[in-house]
Amino acid sequence: MGNEKDKNDKKFFTKQSEDFSKWYTDVILQGDLAEYSAVKGCMVIKPYGYAIWENLRDDLNNRIKDVGVQNCYFPMFIPKHFMDKEAEHVEGFAPEAAVVTHGGGEKLEEPLIIRPTSETIIGDSFSRWVHSYRDLPLKINQWANIVRWEKRTRLFLRTTEFLWQEGHSCHADFEDAERETIKILKLYKEFDREILSVPVLTGQKSESEKFKGAYKTLATEALAKDLKSIQAGTSHNLGQNFAKAFDIKYLDVNNQQQYVYNVSWGVSTRLVGTLIVVHGDDKGLVLPPKVAPHQIVVVPIYKNDEQRSEILNKLSNIVKSIKDKKIRVLLDDRDNLSPGYKFNEWELKGVPLRLEFGPKDMEKNQFVAVRRDTAEKKFYSVPEFIENAEKILDEIQIGIYDKAKTFMESNIHEAKTIDELVEIMETKGGMVKCLWSGDPKVEEIIQEKTKATNRMLEMDDDGNVIETSGTCIGGEKPAKYTAYFAKAY
Amino acid sequence: MGNEKDKNDKKFFTKQSEDFSKWYTDVILQGDLAEYSAVKGCMVIKPYGYAIWENLRDDLNNRIKDVGVQNCYFPMFIPKHFMDKEAEHVEGFAPEAAVVTHGGGEKLEEPLIIRPTSETIIGDSFSRWVHSYRDLPLKINQWANIVRWEKRTRLFLRTTEFLWQEGHSCHADFEDAERETIKILKLYKEFDREILSVPVLTGQKSESEKFKGAYKTLATEALAKDLKSIQAGTSHNLGQNFAKAFDIKYLDVNNQQQYVYNVSWGVSTRLVGTLIVVHGDDKGLVLPPKVAPHQIVVVPIYKNDEQRSEILNKLSNIVKSIKDKKIRVLLDDRDNLSPGYKFNEWELKGVPLRLEFGPKDMEKNQFVAVRRDTAEKKFYSVPEFIENAEKILDEIQIGIYDKAKTFMESNIHEAKTIDELVEIMETKGGMVKCLWSGDPKVEEIIQEKTKATNRMLEMDDDGNVIETSGTCIGGEKPAKYTAYFAKAY
Repeated sequence: MGNEKDKNDKKFFTKQSEDFSKWYTDVILQGDLAEYSAVKGCMVIKPYGYAIWENLRDDLNNRIKDVGVQNCYFPMFIPKHFMDKEAEHVEGFAPEAAVVTHGGGEKLEEPLIIRPTSETIIGDSFSRWVHSYRDLPLKINQWANIVRWEKRTRLFLRTTEFLWQEGHSCHADFEDAERETIKILKLYKEFDREILSVPVLTGQKSESEKFKGAYKTLATEALAKDLKSIQAGTSHNLGQNFAKAFDIKYLDVNNQQQYVYNVSWGVSTRLVGTLIVVHGDDKGLVLPPKVAPHQIVVVPIYKNDEQRSEILNKLSNIVKSIKDKKIRVLLDDRDNLSPGYKFNEWELKGVPLRLEFGPKDMEKNQFVAVRRDTAEKKFYSVPEFIENAEKILDEIQIGIYDKAKTFMESNIHEAKTIDELVEIMETKGGMVKCLWSGDPKVEEIIQEKTKATNRMLEMDDDGNVIETSGTCIGGEKPAKYTAYFAKAY
Repeated sequence: MGNEKDKNDKKFFTKQSEDFSKWYTDVILQGDLAEYSAVKGCMVIKPYGYAIWENLRDDLNNRIKDVGVQNCYFPMFIPKHFMDKEAEHVEGFAPEAAVVTHGGGEKLEEPLIIRPTSETIIGDSFSRWVHSYRDLPLKINQWANIVRWEKRTRLFLRTTEFLWQEGHSCHADFEDAERETIKILKLYKEFDREILSVPVLTGQKSESEKFKGAYKTLATEALAKDLKSIQAGTSHNLGQNFAKAFDIKYLDVNNQQQYVYNVSWGVSTRLVGTLIVVHGDDKGLVLPPKVAPHQIVVVPIYKNDEQRSEILNKLSNIVKSIKDKKIRVLLDDRDNLSPGYKFNEWELKGVPLRLEFGPKDMEKNQFVAVRRDTAEKKFYSVPEFIENAEKILDEIQIGIYDKAKTFMESNIHEAKTIDELVEIMETKGGMVKCLWSGDPKVEEIIQEKTKATNRMLEMDDDGNVIETSGTCIGGEKPAKYTAYFAKAY
């Protein structure tokens, strides 16, 4: 086992503008979100990081239930021969597999794979659960840990073990599966906007980038501050690939046996990493209020014990009034730390709003309120603040989204030729929008020259790729798609 | 891999009184709570079973947070040498280990154990998190999957993979660790009573039954309808065993290095099995309202399409009023099934209250309400029912608890000699209360003669075993403890 845990060093804090990659790790370690563990590739999610995950998970879980999906739990062990049943699937996932060969002191007859995704073991259950058209559509979801062996660890973004939700459904026909695939993609997009304040592009993956075993893959992609694209969620129309591999059949209204069509979809703890790279700045994290463990932190300022007790006394009532509005507010009454130290700490941890309250403020019955996202400082009378607290947090939530949206839009460039694309990637970075024939050779050339990969093909609201005319960026063939290329996480 | 999934047969339903063990499996399979999977020892938790788990988990999670414990997530892989650090611990868990030997296509330098419990990997993090007395107490919890290889599968009660929560804390001194150990045991006991309607005895485990690596183990034990004892939750004072193995030290107020004292505690999906064996009857499950996926089911009764549409129309408004009270109510409007079929199905699934509503009831604006736990039938005017719905459910919640408590109390018998104990176990079963010297030979003799094991030693409210006088049930030595013996799950 490697000594990754020796990297849990909290002495340094790098500026984002100096070294994005180091900044990213420093923010996570110093912000107490996560740490490297004794097991290479696996992270420990600490209370502050886990609270962010819980907040976003609980909201997403409600959205998933609201569209008629039921939660379940499937074994994390997958018999090796299950993986082998879908040829493309095993080819895609076998190289990343963690394999259990011994259990209960004995060598197993057949090795078990720890789930890298659960289409196979769930497909086996579906074959027992689906009998008639009356059983369709059948929609389930599980929140679970997943293992895909990684050579290089990036906390939250690339870990051997991660947490996710995976939705799986069975449909009577292709069209219903298509509708579900796009419905979930839209659910993700709304969730990204409303809860994470993350703007995303949605589109279809090219053949080379789609899920191994899928008929087609749709995805949401966000743009990080270092101008790399980051895949935030995926929704796959699996066609009948797994239905045929696992014999998932139903009797239709005419009493004929038919294979079902499957859909699967997922987002993971990578969303926490996405939040960080999309919103963070030189001072650290910037958290949208809806996911922030503490939405407001109150820092008392005083010179002596007498002032301290007076101020804390007054604040405890005020904080209670804010709590009564179901706002997650923390009174930072630690006595061994200076206000300046606390300001830095809560800025690093991305708390959306800081309230300062000193002797003068107590006299005037007011707060100094400092927004994390804009550094804007504003005075509020205490009753005015309490009345408007939710509104102020909503403004921050939207403000963070708008800023990220402007950033993303201003970093999408168009290119007509590969030379233009190369120049954009070298001088500006970001996403390049262009026409493409669909020829994989063009993807390869672009990747060789720029490290950028095809992120998606533009599609319409029904989830169909928009066919275009014109000339492919590769120069030779007529174009078929509008495609986005970018360096990616 | 075994063919356990061939056991997923739903044709038969055995009466509890005929074959308890078979009844148990039938209820789970036919009630759609869970099924056997393609992987021996691992179950699939289906939507209905998972909803029960979610309900109890969410409530317990709130209770855990309310006592100042924060959620985290630790890797499921444990380096083999971590397990070896605590001698008793590795001896206890190594025989049940699932071992990962290959990852990412290569043989691992050191095998990884899938967590059978996480004291070791969490201890490693604690050694980085604890520096000063100011960091103590430190209390965390995780909800996670666990693997302990099982030779024989019992859905929910004994599975190779199961879900649980495990709390872990660090304390400055032994006394604070003791207080925490007993506090959590009381939290479990209250949760068992208020949410699961399960009465439990609490006490300390004997040396032979305690957690491997603990200084002492406290436990809650319930009594199943087949008169076997079932361990529902455990809380361990680990002393300094893991602190010394993982070097978890802090600087005390006098600037001296000290080892911390650890506590750990957990409950699992076994609680779902506990619910079943404590409350179930010949007709199937009996669910307490607080955990029931559907607290109320409404069955419309009609003779033709016209009646159907009239009745459903009326019911949809009524059901909305019930839902507005945050009651989980289901209107069973399936048209292809008879009311009688539905009655049986919802009785099997343990729905606490069934409302029947036919043409006559519509005329009189009334419901026929049938309690699952008592089979009591009662008429309510619709407005009366809506007004009292929560109260009625609370009465059922308490009624189920009282019934189980009476059952448990009437099945605790006292014995003065081993012969008396043997006779009780042969003729009545249940729990036997007796005096015991603490000599493990007496435990062995009792187990050989009756298969009963020592379930616990009686303790006081502070978690200390109550020392008694008198003669040991073994006859030879003076007694030290009051002990409970029973056959156990």
